[in-house]
Amino acid sequence: MNDQPTLEIPQGFGQLVGYRLAVWQPDYAELVLGLAPRHLNRNKVPHGGVLVTMIDTAAGYAGCYCAEPGRVRRAMTLSLTTSFIAAATADATLTAKAWRTGGGQSIFFARCELVDDTGRLIATGEGSFKYRRGSEDPKGVPA
Amino acid sequence: MNDQPTLEIPQGFGQLVGYRLAVWQPDYAELVLGLAPRHLNRNKVPHGGVLVTMIDTAAGYAGCYCAEPGRVRRAMTLSLTTSFIAAATADATLTAKAWRTGGGQSIFFARCELVDDTGRLIATGEGSFKYRRGSEDPKGVPA
Amino acid sequence: MNDQPTLEIPQGFGQLVGYRLAVWQPDYAELVLGLAPRHLNRNKVPHGGVLVTMIDTAAGYAGCYCAEPGRVRRAMTLSLTTSFIAAATADATLTAKAWRTGGGQSIFFARCELVDDTGRLIATGEGSFKYRRGSEDPKGVPA
Amino acid sequence: MNDQPTLEIPQGFGQLVGYRLAVWQPDYAELVLGLAPRHLNRNKVPHGGVLVTMIDTAAGYAGCYCAEPGRVRRAMTLSLTTSFIAAATADATLTAKAWRTGGGQSIFFARCELVDDTGRLIATGEGSFKYRRGSEDPKGVPA
Repeated sequence: MNDQPTLEIPQGFGQLVGYRLAVWQPDYAELVLGLAPRHLNRNKVPHGGVLVTMIDTAAGYAGCYCAEPGRVRRAMTLSLTTSFIAAATADATLTAKAWRTGGGQSIFFARCELVDDTGRLIATGEGSFKYRRGSEDPKGVPA
Repeated sequence: MNDQPTLEIPQGFGQLVGYRLAVWQPDYAELVLGLAPRHLNRNKVPHGGVLVTMIDTAAGYAGCYCAEPGRVRRAMTLSLTTSFIAAATADATLTAKAWRTGGGQSIFFARCELVDDTGRLIATGEGSFKYRRGSEDPKGVPA
Repeated sequence: MNDQPTLEIPQGFGQLVGYRLAVWQPDYAELVLGLAPRHLNRNKVPHGGVLVTMIDTAAGYAGCYCAEPGRVRRAMTLSLTTSFIAAATADATLTAKAWRTGGGQSIFFARCELVDDTGRLIATGEGSFKYRRGSEDPKGVPA
Repeated sequence: MNDQPTLEIPQGFGQLVGYRLAVWQPDYAELVLGLAPRHLNRNKVPHGGVLVTMIDTAAGYAGCYCAEPGRVRRAMTLSLTTSFIAAATADATLTAKAWRTGGGQSIFFARCELVDDTGRLIATGEGSFKYRRGSEDPKGVPA
């Protein structure tokens, strides 16, 4: 059920992890993932890699919104940081909320807050990104 | 074929991603992953989350080596950073090499270099970690 | 003029850089600095080290508020990250606003936004910190 | 006494902090600072801002070496991270060793190790940088 035409269906690693792009607006994105046993680590808590994957993805989307039908903006992550603030429970539903915080024509920055279904802050992070060739233009490139 | 008795079989997210702990020594660990289509992102290159997952995992292992049979050391990541230096090809085999760089009784630090099969540097990262209760002792806790 | 009795007078490096602790409340701190030629780098823009120093300091204060007269809480930085979002002008007045975002008895996390006098976002950052012995207690230690 | 003609005399904040560029080669730089009371924080240990300033500066220099007489390369920091591994003593001499680790025409990455005069690792860090207009060219711009 996807009533926002610009919402993408995750492929590849996104499909493997299982997150879903729930909200996508100019300078903002939300990613949602219901945790399952396949997301846990050797200590039986959610693997840090799951959280960082959500932060990287949501932060990247926050700077890549494109209002043009049939077109997209693409970027690559330059740097990413994560603070692991609290342990999520093994069956929590996580939401990564990401805001584009600034940047220029070729580079953008975004920050992300990852919360569980009780609203508790699980992790925060920041990334810097570089638009791929053609995607510096807000009108993007053909999808 | 696993002749290092201390090498763990990944579970949960590690199994999903498919990496393998190839070397584990005091203050050092190596993780290996052969990339496949399930590791790619919307731009058809390896998802940043795959790289960061490998860095988090290898860096954590680097500080958790335990020489005692049947015992382990466990830690949680406090913070993690990644620099995405070059794009890996979609079918590269990646190796994450991680070194414990210092720390005290409860906290440790590690850094990681992620290279492809040609030795090219793909990403670097640093993490800070906190031992779980009991794992401050190098003799660890029962597995 | 310092009507908040808990506001500290910077010493050492804080005095050298010249920032001032302007607001200090539970889980929040604000640091202010008027830029001058001594804060510039070889490119005649504010040195990144000035911005990071403000972020480190404000974020640390955000987790060290102590309401007890004559007592303080002390912490050491474990990790710190900064995103340099926009260049400040050479004579701007910078304000670093920092929030404690979480943590437990021994560790805390904080994030910081650095803005100029027009409210423009100049930099953001995150840190993890460890309380010094005795400072885990909100009542702190003798100053 | 400066027999490497390409070594710069620090100005502004560099002069205030007091570090000195001791080695500058393609993809490598070393910065040295003898700590003094003006570098300490409220806990009487070296301020984290001093360490991060050295890391930012050394890492930036590592990517900005220019062999052309009378010309320079300039860059701005996009992101910077630091791990505070051990506390330096209040009168240590610190050396920041930084390596350019990769990058392309417009962006470069560098990592840095900060050691004291006994060779002990005090801090590590990583940065991403963007060349200023004209400095993408290894021949740089007029100084």
